[in-house]
Amino acid sequence: MADQCAESPESSENFVPQGVQTVRWEELAAGPAVVLLDQRRLPAEEVQRVCSDVPALVDAIRTLAVRGAPALGIAGAYGVALAASRGDDVAEAAKLLAEARPTAVNLAYGVRRAARAHQTAVAGGVGREQAAAVALGEARAVHREDAEASTRMAAHGLALLEELLPGEGYRALTHCNTGALVAGGAGTALAVAMAAHRSGRLRRLWVDETRPLLQGARLTTYEAARAGMPYTLLSDNAAGSLFAAGEVDAVLIGADRIAADGSVANKVGSYPLAVLARYHHVPFIVVAPATTVDLATPHGAAIEIEQRPGYEVTEIALPHASGPGDEGPVRVPIAPAGTSAYNPAFDVTPPDLVTAIVTEGGVVSPVTSVGLAELCGRA
Amino acid sequence: MADQCAESPESSENFVPQGVQTVRWEELAAGPAVVLLDQRRLPAEEVQRVCSDVPALVDAIRTLAVRGAPALGIAGAYGVALAASRGDDVAEAAKLLAEARPTAVNLAYGVRRAARAHQTAVAGGVGREQAAAVALGEARAVHREDAEASTRMAAHGLALLEELLPGEGYRALTHCNTGALVAGGAGTALAVAMAAHRSGRLRRLWVDETRPLLQGARLTTYEAARAGMPYTLLSDNAAGSLFAAGEVDAVLIGADRIAADGSVANKVGSYPLAVLARYHHVPFIVVAPATTVDLATPHGAAIEIEQRPGYEVTEIALPHASGPGDEGPVRVPIAPAGTSAYNPAFDVTPPDLVTAIVTEGGVVSPVTSVGLAELCGRA
Repeated sequence: MADQCAESPESSENFVPQGVQTVRWEELAAGPAVVLLDQRRLPAEEVQRVCSDVPALVDAIRTLAVRGAPALGIAGAYGVALAASRGDDVAEAAKLLAEARPTAVNLAYGVRRAARAHQTAVAGGVGREQAAAVALGEARAVHREDAEASTRMAAHGLALLEELLPGEGYRALTHCNTGALVAGGAGTALAVAMAAHRSGRLRRLWVDETRPLLQGARLTTYEAARAGMPYTLLSDNAAGSLFAAGEVDAVLIGADRIAADGSVANKVGSYPLAVLARYHHVPFIVVAPATTVDLATPHGAAIEIEQRPGYEVTEIALPHASGPGDEGPVRVPIAPAGTSAYNPAFDVTPPDLVTAIVTEGGVVSPVTSVGLAELCGRA
Repeated sequence: MADQCAESPESSENFVPQGVQTVRWEELAAGPAVVLLDQRRLPAEEVQRVCSDVPALVDAIRTLAVRGAPALGIAGAYGVALAASRGDDVAEAAKLLAEARPTAVNLAYGVRRAARAHQTAVAGGVGREQAAAVALGEARAVHREDAEASTRMAAHGLALLEELLPGEGYRALTHCNTGALVAGGAGTALAVAMAAHRSGRLRRLWVDETRPLLQGARLTTYEAARAGMPYTLLSDNAAGSLFAAGEVDAVLIGADRIAADGSVANKVGSYPLAVLARYHHVPFIVVAPATTVDLATPHGAAIEIEQRPGYEVTEIALPHASGPGDEGPVRVPIAPAGTSAYNPAFDVTPPDLVTAIVTEGGVVSPVTSVGLAELCGRA
């Protein structure tokens, strides 16, 4: 089945001029669709990607048109609703969606919630349309709960920063993109920085460019600029110089999966920041919804780390120079032909390097398996 | 005065098919010239940059067509010889050359040697042509001595690795480019890795891509591929994952300036590697000619760190897509317009994080100011 995916860069009803809405459900004339703001095209172009079936959505997830743990959960849940609405095999669709990216636990979580709701409705004897409506209702709940979670994480994170760093305000370093582009609401780590900015406490946001895919350079700057934050971009290599100069008061990062012992899988480059933060006695703060905690994964070594294609390192994707149709960005080689690359998408930071984990249910600090389990019970 | 700089990508007599010769003196029909292998075009194109006067050479130095501490020293010395040969004001040319890049001490060293030789010859009453020949002779000596120093550094470094890592061979991580492209001979850190490779001891060379200018991705891979080394490229962010997985046995890096206390200024991103290496009990080995040691700079905080333009971070230079004429690579934005960037060219690693400094005169380990001063006395 060919991907049923279209782009509407000019569509005025889809364009979001102020806030950023990264995933949404649309009832279009041609039928329902999951509409994504294609993150690979940002910041040069704001392209809406209209996914009318599950393969198109799976492709969008796999190629990182949509990314970030909470947004993947929302997209996955809507994907199940889409399959149900189309009359596709929902169990098969759920499997395809959940396996589109292996590390992000939220994707499987969102898929599972919508699929279970659908399954329960079907088992209850309701008709196809009604079961599809139940799946959509559950997907909307996943979306809404995530937005609410962002608000609560921002509040908890801001309170933590005030406690750790009383005084003149602070300079926070962040990695990858963890804002509204990855969430139903304001996001995770970037939501905390936004809250600090709005309360006049953020002196500067240092934005790691986040190679290889440059989510910091392309996406975090995009959100920071829109919000009027004082921000400065740096190559990931320059973070060490900032720490050494005493210019970093806190590190704020997200998480893609947190094991039961508090080990944090997050965008590659997070672990080196944790080691630098420890060496310089700077708080290293992880902000993530409780759904990111996977109590079934006992420790960091048990977290499956997605190895991504080497061409992400040996080539540069040019966000502005998009290819024709749906092919995504143009890629330009930066290394000699035949060069192989090591390209893990994530790394794992052990709990002893994490100052605190901030979730919508509160803060765990110090990070212990007991504290995490208690928090998950509450959340 | 307009830059007198030409390119000869097709010139068969200039093309170096086997080894890499990054800087050389040429007596062309149009007059003498300093010919550079334009490193900004690699690995896509091997372009010879013919600099017929000092402003052209200064521009090549400033725009990183030639780079790396030893090569800068050689280029600077030849630049003085070029000025002398043309009948330019040699003192003025020496000043321009020495100030083209502030951090690399070797540049000033090479310039000073050729300028002093010229000055002494002039003071001795010889004619213009003879004084120019003296300057050229001194530049050739700087070049030859550097090549010999590479050979000796490689031998000392290999012996050190054998001592630190007996057994099955080793996997070395390197940052930036420190090979034949930056030196009169085989280079510094990469020369050690090359020696290990030739002796069958190098199991793998991990090559940091080295943002923002990607010298690792573009240049170290180019040299490693030519030499048939087992190498793998990684984004700088992925180094932490390799350390955590026990996949790095040693870090081999160069230096742009070493202070009297053993603080090492090197390409930005070196210091985070030093912190990671310490955290993982991996040797962090600096390989640099003794000319890199600047006993007049007492400690790391006294090293001037060159801040480079923000566009190196907010834009990507495409090595293969060179602009017309002499404009260098095409630049493509990766961040929103108006984004400011923090872009130090170097960082400083304190001596307590450096396992050993390898020079042509031998190895200093542990790194102490007394040990360094003694070594400089010997070298």
